[in-house]
Amino acid sequence: MKEYFREEYDGYLVTNPVNLLYFTELIGAPDTLGAAIMLIPKNDESTLHIYGVNYEWAKAEAKNCTVEQVKSGEDLTKKLAEQVRRQKVKRLAFDTMNFQTHRRFSEAMKRAERLEEKSEYVWNLRRVKDQDELKAMQKAADLTMVGMQAAHDTIEAGLREIEVAAEIEYAMRTHGSYGLAFETSVASGPRSAYPHGGCGEHKIRKGNAVVVDIGARYRNYCADMTRTFTVGKPSTKQEKIYALVERAQEEAFRKIHEGARAADVDGVARKIIEKAGYSEHFVHGLGHGIGLEVHEQPNLSSVSKDVLKAGNMVTDEPGVYIVGFGGFRIEDTVFVRKGKAKRLTEGLRFLGKK
Amino acid sequence: MKEYFREEYDGYLVTNPVNLLYFTELIGAPDTLGAAIMLIPKNDESTLHIYGVNYEWAKAEAKNCTVEQVKSGEDLTKKLAEQVRRQKVKRLAFDTMNFQTHRRFSEAMKRAERLEEKSEYVWNLRRVKDQDELKAMQKAADLTMVGMQAAHDTIEAGLREIEVAAEIEYAMRTHGSYGLAFETSVASGPRSAYPHGGCGEHKIRKGNAVVVDIGARYRNYCADMTRTFTVGKPSTKQEKIYALVERAQEEAFRKIHEGARAADVDGVARKIIEKAGYSEHFVHGLGHGIGLEVHEQPNLSSVSKDVLKAGNMVTDEPGVYIVGFGGFRIEDTVFVRKGKAKRLTEGLRFLGKK
Repeated sequence: MKEYFREEYDGYLVTNPVNLLYFTELIGAPDTLGAAIMLIPKNDESTLHIYGVNYEWAKAEAKNCTVEQVKSGEDLTKKLAEQVRRQKVKRLAFDTMNFQTHRRFSEAMKRAERLEEKSEYVWNLRRVKDQDELKAMQKAADLTMVGMQAAHDTIEAGLREIEVAAEIEYAMRTHGSYGLAFETSVASGPRSAYPHGGCGEHKIRKGNAVVVDIGARYRNYCADMTRTFTVGKPSTKQEKIYALVERAQEEAFRKIHEGARAADVDGVARKIIEKAGYSEHFVHGLGHGIGLEVHEQPNLSSVSKDVLKAGNMVTDEPGVYIVGFGGFRIEDTVFVRKGKAKRLTEGLRFLGKK
Repeated sequence: MKEYFREEYDGYLVTNPVNLLYFTELIGAPDTLGAAIMLIPKNDESTLHIYGVNYEWAKAEAKNCTVEQVKSGEDLTKKLAEQVRRQKVKRLAFDTMNFQTHRRFSEAMKRAERLEEKSEYVWNLRRVKDQDELKAMQKAADLTMVGMQAAHDTIEAGLREIEVAAEIEYAMRTHGSYGLAFETSVASGPRSAYPHGGCGEHKIRKGNAVVVDIGARYRNYCADMTRTFTVGKPSTKQEKIYALVERAQEEAFRKIHEGARAADVDGVARKIIEKAGYSEHFVHGLGHGIGLEVHEQPNLSSVSKDVLKAGNMVTDEPGVYIVGFGGFRIEDTVFVRKGKAKRLTEGLRFLGKK
């Protein structure tokens, strides 16, 4: 981290809970961290300031820092401003801050020469996965495939979407998932046409397309996978659209490698879908980075400026959504390499249940 | 909502995803909403601006607003600034904004007389639950109790924490849960001494205290409940601490009613635990508001300035955590009324498994 601010800053302030997990290697849900903040000074040890409720846990398990307890009622902003002065940090960058905190902190830091947002310093690190991260993500992907098999085996007419979700999540948990990467989505029938359809008490019906979008978590790392199944034999139109989405997904996958422009990868899938006359039904970008969060950098869309690097982890997930008819999406989590990319999730690539 | 800004503002900007769900009554995970924003002008209809991926869903299901699509690559800030000008909104309040967005929006809104954070306007509404919200939360609480029964029935020496979590979540889902209010926590043995211990691959051992902290969700509404069980007959010290926590929880519960100062309610539990010599082991506030989010207003702690109102929903969850020995917490979700409060979660109030 420190190499990033050697020139311009004397220190970096980490306030985003996911970034805090990244640097401290703590395992847990980001929202339990509360208002913890970590100061990484250029010429000194890093300090994690954390409230009493999490203090003993962090003291026992946090890496790469010393841990200081914030007492109930204590003003964390003031405490930090004091430390910044004590450690002679005058030019400070940070990852994120809401505008009230920024105002209060600016006032408390009167003598600072600089207090600037530089979230990209952390993203430059988080975007490139190392071997340990790759291993954790493959584990998350394996667990996700177990969940998808359960979805395939469970889906039938008459079941409610949340009952299918129950079987998926149970299978992932009993095989070792630490939790969900995001809310399980089992969107059937008309709701399959909403990319974030989620799942509810709707009953699945014969003839429905069911878009299953799920992710397990291993330690803090996420996977993301979507398959679309029909209940009963698919119709000709369902099969035609599915085949189109599958071709778009495969062709885009072949384009994923170090040095590829993210917008070009999106373009490969988009052109295939456009040529078939469904361009206005592909209502989202091709994919997104994934790691500690299910949506992170880089971004694979037509307006993305990102260029892929070896070590990036992205999703490849074209979709066609027709209101009143149904939705079709196929998604894998994909590891970017110099040569051919590697799918972390795979299999179950068919529409009608086998 | 509009009554809150009649005097000082011509419009209100909602950017927080949970607040957006509150006003639109959409059901789903907040993080799938993306960068949607809603403008509530004083003298006009409200507009929800939402990206294409969620547009058809929002158009079909959002209440209390018209829905406009933000195109990929379009600048939402500029688009909003234009609408604000068009609708002659010169004095604008908002719920939250990070400091970069605030800067960009301030620039785009050059002619605005006012652009100020007023998150409390929304909290004044969200803090007081109406009958529909109470019903949804009772449903979430009922599902949570089903999960707790599963925890009780499952826990035994040799099982991994995440295997117990699997049974809890499966029970809640198959009975109708829309998802989790927060990450399931099954913290056993030494990890039970960490209030946010979560759950991992640790095996539960005979003699362990196991703190089970879980919540189901019904529609978008959360419940929150904690019980502590021992594996095998509890020791005298375990029983003594458990009885203390239980007394603190019950006495605090009796203090919860309209007009009570939140700090006083916390004080009731804190004094009981302090008198027994464990004050430094009660490392968090007594409780928190709960509703669309598991942690919201009001706040029950020694430094809270909140005064309880009928319609508030809060947790009552004292705990004693002894590093190296174990943790003990009992928590219920509680509805504040004029007279005696009402527990939404109840039962299973014993330490050793029955």
